[in-house]
Amino acid sequence: MEHLEIERKFLVKTEAFKQQAISQTRIVQGFLNTDPERTVRVRIKGERGFLTVKGASNESGTTRFEWETEISVAEAANLIDLCEAGILEKVRFEVPLGKHMFEVDEFLGENKGLLLAEVELTHEDERFERPDWLGQEVTGQVQYYNSQLSIKPFKEW
Amino acid sequence: MEHLEIERKFLVKTEAFKQQAISQTRIVQGFLNTDPERTVRVRIKGERGFLTVKGASNESGTTRFEWETEISVAEAANLIDLCEAGILEKVRFEVPLGKHMFEVDEFLGENKGLLLAEVELTHEDERFERPDWLGQEVTGQVQYYNSQLSIKPFKEW
Repeated sequence: MEHLEIERKFLVKTEAFKQQAISQTRIVQGFLNTDPERTVRVRIKGERGFLTVKGASNESGTTRFEWETEISVAEAANLIDLCEAGILEKVRFEVPLGKHMFEVDEFLGENKGLLLAEVELTHEDERFERPDWLGQEVTGQVQYYNSQLSIKPFKEW
Repeated sequence: MEHLEIERKFLVKTEAFKQQAISQTRIVQGFLNTDPERTVRVRIKGERGFLTVKGASNESGTTRFEWETEISVAEAANLIDLCEAGILEKVRFEVPLGKHMFEVDEFLGENKGLLLAEVELTHEDERFERPDWLGQEVTGQVQYYNSQLSIKPFKEW
């Protein structure tokens, strides 16, 4: 499945989002390529596996080509073994707000202390409700790409 | 689908293999990563698309982890647009010999003049019939990896 992913990304100020979360899922992921122009991600999300390719973002940083296919967890585990150093672990919380779903990632390991929220939009200028816990926008800032967090984790900033 | 790919690779001395070929198929392929430790290949082979990940080879160069999934030609074409420079084009001939199938690639474009034959084996020491047209063995020589031919094509050697 492929589409243009339009999303905005924010820092998170408090853990208040956890009270509004409807799910939390552990994610382990690695990268077969961390180049922002052709990122290749292998992910185990709960009991499911995924392989995802993303292209470069547009100028505003909101839109990237994304192609994803589901694979077995066993296949994903084998592919993660081939990945570059810097396997990421995080817990993803789904937080519904109005007609949008925020995905808030609480990073573990070398990125512990980092909380990032993303909201997927149907077009770049779409309005959305901003919860109190939402912090500064970091859309398009490459250091917050997961691929870059695997190379230069938050603890080293 | 994943497996350990065991194969040996040879130069090809003459075009006599074409008389024995049972099929020929045009292949266009690019790489989302050319690193021999985590090669990510996108291929359009005739009317089918594939995404393939290969790991590092063993010491003798015969064996590599390989994972492959079939994708649509449209998806493959979009992913090829994201690939590193150096899209490869070649015609693949299937040449049966005894109980083995040789795959002979006649490269086009920047690799024109290069002919490479591969034979897939079930174990490293498996014997196989050597046709007259088979030349010097180049198994494990990284410059003959397709990923490396896309970076440093035969015409530049």
